[in-house]
Amino acid sequence: MTSQSPARGPRSVTLVDTTLRDGMSSVSHRFTTRDVAAIAAGLDRAGVPTIEVAHGIGLGASSVQYGFAAATDPEYVRAAVDAVDNADIAALYVPGIATLNELQAAVDAGISTVRVAVHCTEADCGQQPVEWAKENGLTVMTFLMMSHKLEPDALAEQAAKLDSYGADVVYVVDSAGALVPRQAGERVAALREAISADIGFHAHNNLGVGIANALTAAENGATYIDGSLRGLGASAGNAQTEVLAAAFERAGWDTGVELFPLIDTAENVVAPLMTEPQIVDETALVLGYAGVYSTFFHPTKRAAKKFGVPARDILLELGRRGVIGGQEDMIIDVASELAGRTYQTPVAAEV
Amino acid sequence: MTSQSPARGPRSVTLVDTTLRDGMSSVSHRFTTRDVAAIAAGLDRAGVPTIEVAHGIGLGASSVQYGFAAATDPEYVRAAVDAVDNADIAALYVPGIATLNELQAAVDAGISTVRVAVHCTEADCGQQPVEWAKENGLTVMTFLMMSHKLEPDALAEQAAKLDSYGADVVYVVDSAGALVPRQAGERVAALREAISADIGFHAHNNLGVGIANALTAAENGATYIDGSLRGLGASAGNAQTEVLAAAFERAGWDTGVELFPLIDTAENVVAPLMTEPQIVDETALVLGYAGVYSTFFHPTKRAAKKFGVPARDILLELGRRGVIGGQEDMIIDVASELAGRTYQTPVAAEV
Repeated sequence: MTSQSPARGPRSVTLVDTTLRDGMSSVSHRFTTRDVAAIAAGLDRAGVPTIEVAHGIGLGASSVQYGFAAATDPEYVRAAVDAVDNADIAALYVPGIATLNELQAAVDAGISTVRVAVHCTEADCGQQPVEWAKENGLTVMTFLMMSHKLEPDALAEQAAKLDSYGADVVYVVDSAGALVPRQAGERVAALREAISADIGFHAHNNLGVGIANALTAAENGATYIDGSLRGLGASAGNAQTEVLAAAFERAGWDTGVELFPLIDTAENVVAPLMTEPQIVDETALVLGYAGVYSTFFHPTKRAAKKFGVPARDILLELGRRGVIGGQEDMIIDVASELAGRTYQTPVAAEV
Repeated sequence: MTSQSPARGPRSVTLVDTTLRDGMSSVSHRFTTRDVAAIAAGLDRAGVPTIEVAHGIGLGASSVQYGFAAATDPEYVRAAVDAVDNADIAALYVPGIATLNELQAAVDAGISTVRVAVHCTEADCGQQPVEWAKENGLTVMTFLMMSHKLEPDALAEQAAKLDSYGADVVYVVDSAGALVPRQAGERVAALREAISADIGFHAHNNLGVGIANALTAAENGATYIDGSLRGLGASAGNAQTEVLAAAFERAGWDTGVELFPLIDTAENVVAPLMTEPQIVDETALVLGYAGVYSTFFHPTKRAAKKFGVPARDILLELGRRGVIGGQEDMIIDVASELAGRTYQTPVAAEV
């Protein structure tokens, strides 16, 4: 349907790499334009057709709240555009964080795809940017973030709205890494029944099933699969692109990419730039278990240290309160409350 | 059927932890008896009913070939036995590496379960130790290693032999981390049809689907699931026990263990002892992709360095030759051959 989706056969998927966007969260948004160029070039050589770049929280997010990036969004976009021969360069647009001004600047810098991300109950917020982007000739992918929060049928209703605005692809986005494969598959299947747009899946690995959720999504009709080299991404990280390529091949799927150039870029370009390994530690696991937005990972670790309360307790309480992306201020509220409540019982022994 | 398998309901599995055996490979078999006691105590507090200990390649493997452990097998067993209140302590027995003398010593030190591991085509080799162990009152789990090498029906024929010798549990063991979930499930389902013993599943994470393979194994009739804290294990590591506990719970399974004590032991006891993060790097991924035995991981990395050839090329060639556990000497053969063959074309640019 879109330029990225050449019909290659019944068991084929299109990989979209987000090392340079979601992966920014793993390096505190500090990739340089030179890093971006090197990684984008490697992905392009491997045949990845769409590469998402810029700040980890999307266009316009470089700030005290979300962390300052090492370059501006247009600088990142231009670096990637200049580095590739074939790939489309994409940017993430979260309504409320970005405005159409930032999107116009990204278009001027050379993106040909925009990914509009809304909380899974708020598809309405996607109408303006989706329609604007279609009018301006962009390929439009849309994200239903925190998809674990809605049952499959309710999620499909939200997807139908994005479809009606003109989205080329609607993603089931497991922002908290809270879905297990059956649940991921059920959500994709419900969307596949309900809409005519292509379906995508964006995993996080907090329950260790990111790759498997992507496989199950494909078995249920998803044709766009997100990943990042070395799994770089918020909290436990994303589905690891080079592992996706190998696992999909072994499962009988055509991804259209070349495995060994991907591995070379992961091992020789991305790995040396990493500041911490992408693993499922306590905080990442509890975040997925509690169903909390992945970008709460680092701020929760910082608040735990500052207030002397276990990160685990903060995350479990945030999960109970059902917070969503954009409500990062609640981390401090919860941490300070827990610190007061547990003051007479020092928590150090429990950490 | 066995002491570790109390009937807890239709969707229940029994976790077996191998941090202190398979995980030994990640720390060059250097856990001390004190480390073993601390980790075993934590697992026991969390309610893990069976804990496997001693050298990473099993009883009797401490040697130049497989690496010297920091203590003897009986010392490890005694340390674990003394540290737990409820858990059974198990040891791995690979015929040809261990003899009944080592097994007797482990029994004397206090194991109540033995895990007899044979290559998937060689179930016959399990007869003597399985029968000996049953006569001596042990619970007997058996491993069909490198299970990806046989189609489901052929694997079930081998399982039937182990069943006939008296094994309490027959494991599908994905030693190379080469199976994707559908393939893991098909193998377990074939065994479930063919034998009356309980079925187990032992994952490696080389294709990123260790946890998902375990879930799929359970959906197809496996009731014993191996894991290790922080995923410690040969090459890409095992299914991460604390993540298994969370993912199985979220998928509607009862594991009978307590999640947070498990996480505490992983985070506060195991993580500080790790000498390298348990990740899917190039060598681990190619090992799974090529279907090579996981314990070839470190020797292949060393040979690659020594002979100046890419580890990737060695593994792909070993995969083509269909080597199995115990044929580690082939690594050197292949590396030296490749070094000769590529002498006129320096490989540095390719690494």
